[in-house]
Amino acid sequence: MTLEAIRYRAGSLQILNQLLLPHETVYDEIRSVQDGYEAIKSMKVRGAPAIAIVGCLSLAVELKAGAGGDDLVGFIRESLCHLTSARPTAVNMGRAARELMEFAENESMEKNTEQLRESVIGWIEEMLERDVNDNRKIGNYGAQHILSGVPRDSVTILTHCNTGSLATAGYGTALGVVRSLHALGRLKRVYCTETRPYNQGARLTAYEAVSEGFPATLITDSMAALTMREKGITAVVVGADRVVANGDTANKVGTYQLAIAAKHHGIPFYVAAPSTSCDLSLESGRDIVIEERPPEELTSINGVPVAAPGIEVWNPAFDVTPHQLITGGIITELGVFLPSELQAALTGRLTALKER
Amino acid sequence: MTLEAIRYRAGSLQILNQLLLPHETVYDEIRSVQDGYEAIKSMKVRGAPAIAIVGCLSLAVELKAGAGGDDLVGFIRESLCHLTSARPTAVNMGRAARELMEFAENESMEKNTEQLRESVIGWIEEMLERDVNDNRKIGNYGAQHILSGVPRDSVTILTHCNTGSLATAGYGTALGVVRSLHALGRLKRVYCTETRPYNQGARLTAYEAVSEGFPATLITDSMAALTMREKGITAVVVGADRVVANGDTANKVGTYQLAIAAKHHGIPFYVAAPSTSCDLSLESGRDIVIEERPPEELTSINGVPVAAPGIEVWNPAFDVTPHQLITGGIITELGVFLPSELQAALTGRLTALKER
Repeated sequence: MTLEAIRYRAGSLQILNQLLLPHETVYDEIRSVQDGYEAIKSMKVRGAPAIAIVGCLSLAVELKAGAGGDDLVGFIRESLCHLTSARPTAVNMGRAARELMEFAENESMEKNTEQLRESVIGWIEEMLERDVNDNRKIGNYGAQHILSGVPRDSVTILTHCNTGSLATAGYGTALGVVRSLHALGRLKRVYCTETRPYNQGARLTAYEAVSEGFPATLITDSMAALTMREKGITAVVVGADRVVANGDTANKVGTYQLAIAAKHHGIPFYVAAPSTSCDLSLESGRDIVIEERPPEELTSINGVPVAAPGIEVWNPAFDVTPHQLITGGIITELGVFLPSELQAALTGRLTALKER
Repeated sequence: MTLEAIRYRAGSLQILNQLLLPHETVYDEIRSVQDGYEAIKSMKVRGAPAIAIVGCLSLAVELKAGAGGDDLVGFIRESLCHLTSARPTAVNMGRAARELMEFAENESMEKNTEQLRESVIGWIEEMLERDVNDNRKIGNYGAQHILSGVPRDSVTILTHCNTGSLATAGYGTALGVVRSLHALGRLKRVYCTETRPYNQGARLTAYEAVSEGFPATLITDSMAALTMREKGITAVVVGADRVVANGDTANKVGTYQLAIAAKHHGIPFYVAAPSTSCDLSLESGRDIVIEERPPEELTSINGVPVAAPGIEVWNPAFDVTPHQLITGGIITELGVFLPSELQAALTGRLTALKER
């Protein structure tokens, strides 16, 4: 992995400030849960997996520095609640918070405060490692699935937003699939949409593509359908902020439109996401609350106004793609599943893992 | 008409420099064909009808100043060739050039140089008036057609790019339909896409909407499908750079994607264009040459870099929407036609007009 978006060693956390990319490469020190909260809220760090990891690591750093006093469980609970509130749509932070809280409560029955502190830090450090390993599996499963349809040719992928090393602990989800295809020598080209209004594609995916040497072309979001018709797109692969039980997927706004265009052109549409982004507690995408962000994200770029003063703005950050449009499948670290298979695959497999 | 994008009186032409909108309202003096060519090429003026009008008016101004010498027909021919080459996709300039050339050649048989000069200037001035009148008809036909489906309700329109007073001699084509609906008290709201990479929607349509008091909301191009699903869009109405014989339509890139999304949601999709934008000499959209513009339009905004350095870019300015997706109809100054009716409607009606 060339790009290091999260620099962690025991007691120390630095994150690559993505608001300054691609022009400046600046690492910001995260010394506390409040620093972590602000980094997530202001989008210095983004991408559902990275949000959870940076959030939890910010807690690990503050714990290592001795925070929490005698009521360590109370401190952990408050910290996790605060971190979860920074970006409501991304499910990973909420899930990590629940799991870590359950772990901490169980540990607190048997251990003293200092032992508890160390075991919680250990749990968080394992989470970091697991994310990278899961992403490698997602990359490989996704690449194999796409290549199984085209035994000898190299492939052209269209992707949206940023789902690479910058959005995860490393490697990436949808861009991890692209990374795997490139490593196999089978990537002809990746088209990345600029992803308005926050330009994650133009700033971040393009930055990763140039850094890693992927053959890559930037297009506007509005050119995606034309690119599908003219450029021989093999598959569309996107990430997810949340996949619910029936396979409906919340992801960066514009994903729904891409899925409609892919369906129109008969191009398989894949969602790449770790099982930690799957939320089986929600039945369908109608239950997902969509975050609306400030108008200024559309009306100015880097503080420079780009729209007519006084115009009203609608700025939903995400949209929900119905499972019927996810025609390629959902790529997880456990394999590639049709939306209709997802719930059984995850519950069956996760139960099996727990039983060991 | 509130906004005056083209200020013309005999011998004098000023155009509102659209590159500086919405921040600065500056009129540039056009004194010659070369000034006109440069204004079109640099996109100080844009929109297929406005390009033709400004191009021809720049010739009228230079003729009024006495240009051309003895070989006035030769001067007119060279000027029109030069103007037509500034933006190849817009058909109106090419058509106006052919018609004006034919007129000038006929006139030259009967008239002396100074009489010819005056009659060519008169022809161009009539063209300016005709464009505004045709746009009013387009606005009214389009509004009536859309309202015929919803007898009592007010309507919500989604539009793309800028097709208003700034793109025409005045009133507008697709935005003229919106203007007519607003005048009738039946416009609930218009959603305008920002229209990357040149932001004509955010800069120009939003500017017109605020100026005119339309209830209007700006969205990114990627939010259009979500807007169709969530905001009760009655119809999508866009302009055209060129409509060919089978109804296939070249328009600002992103139009094709909007048409696919409209079809998916069962929302009627209309193209609003004067018959001068119809080019029956081409059978299908496959014959249309699509202009590709410089990468810098995507990688920087107002000179500020917004993409990762070194990324490759594809920047087609237009796309072609197949006639099958134009489900509402093609709105012209002669009425609203299905794509399959267009050729007969235009040739029948135009013949009838000539016979009078």
